Order: sequence, then C-alpha cells, then structure tokens
Amino acid sequence: MDKRKLILVSNDDGIDAKGLQSLIRIAKQFGDVFVVAPERGQSGMSHSISLTTPLRVRYLEKSDELTICAVPGTPVDCVKLAINQLLPRRPDLMLSGINHGSNSAVSVIYSGTMGAAIESSLYGINSIGFSVLDHSPNADFSLVEKYGPQLVAKVLEEGLPNQVSLNVNFPIIEDSEYKGYKFCKQTSGVWNEDFEKRTDPHGRDYYWLTGSFLNAELENEDSDEWALANNYASIVPIKIDFTEYKTLEKIKNWKI
Amino acid sequence: MDKRKLILVSNDDGIDAKGLQSLIRIAKQFGDVFVVAPERGQSGMSHSISLTTPLRVRYLEKSDELTICAVPGTPVDCVKLAINQLLPRRPDLMLSGINHGSNSAVSVIYSGTMGAAIESSLYGINSIGFSVLDHSPNADFSLVEKYGPQLVAKVLEEGLPNQVSLNVNFPIIEDSEYKGYKFCKQTSGVWNEDFEKRTDPHGRDYYWLTGSFLNAELENEDSDEWALANNYASIVPIKIDFTEYKTLEKIKNWKI
Repeated sequence: MDKRKLILVSNDDGIDAKGLQSLIRIAKQFGDVFVVAPERGQSGMSHSISLTTPLRVRYLEKSDELTICAVPGTPVDCVKLAINQLLPRRPDLMLSGINHGSNSAVSVIYSGTMGAAIESSLYGINSIGFSVLDHSPNADFSLVEKYGPQLVAKVLEEGLPNQVSLNVNFPIIEDSEYKGYKFCKQTSGVWNEDFEKRTDPHGRDYYWLTGSFLNAELENEDSDEWALANNYASIVPIKIDFTEYKTLEKIKNWKI
Repeated sequence: MDKRKLILVSNDDGIDAKGLQSLIRIAKQFGDVFVVAPERGQSGMSHSISLTTPLRVRYLEKSDELTICAVPGTPVDCVKLAINQLLPRRPDLMLSGINHGSNSAVSVIYSGTMGAAIESSLYGINSIGFSVLDHSPNADFSLVEKYGPQLVAKVLEEGLPNQVSLNVNFPIIEDSEYKGYKFCKQTSGVWNEDFEKRTDPHGRDYYWLTGSFLNAELENEDSDEWALANNYASIVPIKIDFTEYKTLEKIKNWKI
C-alpha cells in the first residue's frame, strides 16, 4: 500500500495569518499536512535562525491527517525543527506562505517565507513559496487557491533538481484578467530606501524604514517583475550558491 | 585636492565586539571611518530587516576621521540607515566584521555579517566581509589585522564588479602556518541539525539549535572549506541572483 504523501507547511506571517489557512486548504488536496509556523509575524526575517533563545512547540491540532503547531521562532527555525524533530517521516514536499505581500525580485533575500522554502530545499526537500502582491491581513488568495494546486501537482509528479525551490508570486487581479504561469528569472534591481525621520514626544529622533524598488531591467520579459506587471503569476526556480563565478575567474589573478 | 576615502564599517556581533575594534583599526589605514553597528549581538540574523520597530541612533564618537554609532536593529538595518541617512557622502568601501565565527560554505546565508556586506553591494558599494573560525568573544584576529589590509588595498585599487562582494574567512592558525589567500567557490553542503531537547524546571520541553556541517565536496580544492582546512584564508566573490538558470530552461516546458 502506498503511504499517503506528507506535506510540510510553514510561513512568515505567523500561525494566525489568513494566507496560511489558504495554503493548508491547498496542501490537504495532496496528502497529510503538518504545519509548523511562527507564533508571531516574522516578515523580513530572511534566513535568520535563533541562536540565543530556545524553541518551544505549541500544538493546536494533532492527527494523522492534520497537525498544526506554533513555534516562537523564525520561519527557518520552524523548518529545521520540523525536519529534525517533529515530523513523523520525511516530507514529500514543503509549501511556504501564502505570503501577504510580494517576494519577487530581490525581495526574495529579505523574505522569511522564502527563507523557509529555501531551508527545506537545502535538506533536499522540494519546496514552493507562494506570495501575493498584497500585504494586507485580508489579502485575496483566491487566485492561488484556484491555480496553485496544478503547480503543486506538477512538482510532486516531476520533482525539482536537488536543492532547488520555486519562488511563486501572484498578481492581485480578477480571474478573467489572469494569463497563467510564466517561468522567470529574478529581476535585477535594488530597494531604494527612504527612511521617514520622526521625533518622539520626548524629543528623540527615530527612523521608519520605507522605500521603493528600482527595477534595473524594466523591459525584460523574462523577469518576474515584468510577468507580474503583465498579469502572469511568476515562477522563479532558485538555488543558494552565492558564488559569482565570472568574478571568481577574473580576480583569481590578483596578486595579494 | 583628493577627498579622503570614506569606509563604512558594520558587523553582526554588535558594537562592543572585539572583532569590530580590529576592523576599525584596519579601516583607519585607508581613510575616514564611519561605523554603524547593532547595539546587541545579531548572529544568525541573515538578511533580516526591521519592519515593525523604528530605529534610533546612539552616537559614541563623532568626528571627521571616526564616527561610531549604534543602532538597535539588524546588520542590514545598519547599512540601509547608514547609506540613506547617516553617512556624509557615498562610501568608497564597506567592511563587515570581523565576525567571531566562520561564514564559509552555506553559513553565508545565515550570517548577519555577510547580510551587511551583501546589502552594501546591492547599493553598488564594494564590500568585504571578514570572519575568523573562532566564535569566542576573545577570538584572535591578528592574522586578519596582518593580512587584511593588502586585500582592502587591492579592492580599493581594482574595484569589484557591480553588486559583487567578497566573503573572506580566516583559519585560526599560527602566522608561520598561514599559506595566504585562496580564491574559492562556496562549498556545497548543508547544516545537519541536531536539536538538543531539554525539560525546564516547570516540566515543559524546549529545544536548542545545534548541528554540524555536512560537506558535499570534501575533496574539491576550489571550495572555501578545503582552503580553510589547508591553512589558507578563503575569498569567495558573491552576488545575489538566486535564479537557478539551468532549472529555468528545463521547467519552462512544463504544461501548467
């Protein structure tokens, strides 16, 4: 008898996020679901790990078909703890999100949602991070709920190369405008920060981080930003090797 | 008259770390130094940013030659705030560290020190992250203080390609054993976590994150782990494009 598939689910918006509920509904269509998500919102936590605080586990639900627990740590903590301690068996797939807000372009490096997906891929577990371009608590996840399952099915069927995960972003548009998936590269560019300086009631200055993305390849139809601006959902396959090989060849000749 | 060079310095071990003092001594040899470092240790904070808390700035020193300030945020927060608000002019170079502990191989993705260096490179500012393979507060930074300046001088002279930074790790060995710099790729592999489960005095379980690195290319002389194990300081040029182009070509044909 075939064992039922096991899907690990996490996110960075925390255990109470609406997007997590949507993703659980998607995951349930493919097998048993095991959710390990942060107790609190962890947006912008990137690939951070808890080195100085211990982790506890709070179970909200516990059955063969669906287990849900919360961990007072980062998304990557959740994945590490799930894979190494909590899961009853090695998962067939890891799903992260659905993130409230875009993780396209360079945002992938700041994202806790993608941190969790990437961490899973490092363990050799296929993973997909889903995001929508609306960071409000009540963001509309209906497009992902409708079109996400066919991508999940494909990844379960075909698999992904070792240590590769998918960064998937959905535009916020009507279903009738939606043009389908587009495979893309990560758009080049940088967040242009525009800190807001304020003074507190006690006369002390403080700064709020804000900013906007400067797209360095606006016209590139292969980029994820272009896809999203043109009513596609973007899929960027990603892998963590920071090495810049072209530069490596060049600077190897430095006399130092 | 040539303007003096301006060097931005940050780290992830916090404003009081011994390694930061070593790096300031190195930076001073090349021009004016502006330090923006976290108030507290931020090891393992990766590329995280503060989205829900404002940032304040505490000046410890303030002159044309040397400014030192502390920010209650992450290393990436420090760099963003420095570049966008605090620095008197665009810096010629950014130095991060010296980190107490290795940032070789996949550790680069968890590292706050490299988060700060990478963030600078995203703004087009050449950057170098320095680390030593000893995470104790009293780690010995004398090798970096001796051999770091020649690398800094070379980067100031030659420059680095746009958005490329250097991840530099030093072994903990005697000067007589040191073999010099070696240009490397990021070693493939994964941290194998081995959580330690304990029970608190109130009977509740908790977990401590611990683990060891599983090297997937032990014999590869081009890898940074090999260099460090063989008494070289490793230099890995890095750039943030997570796109896995090989896979992109392959999955473009998926019918979804």
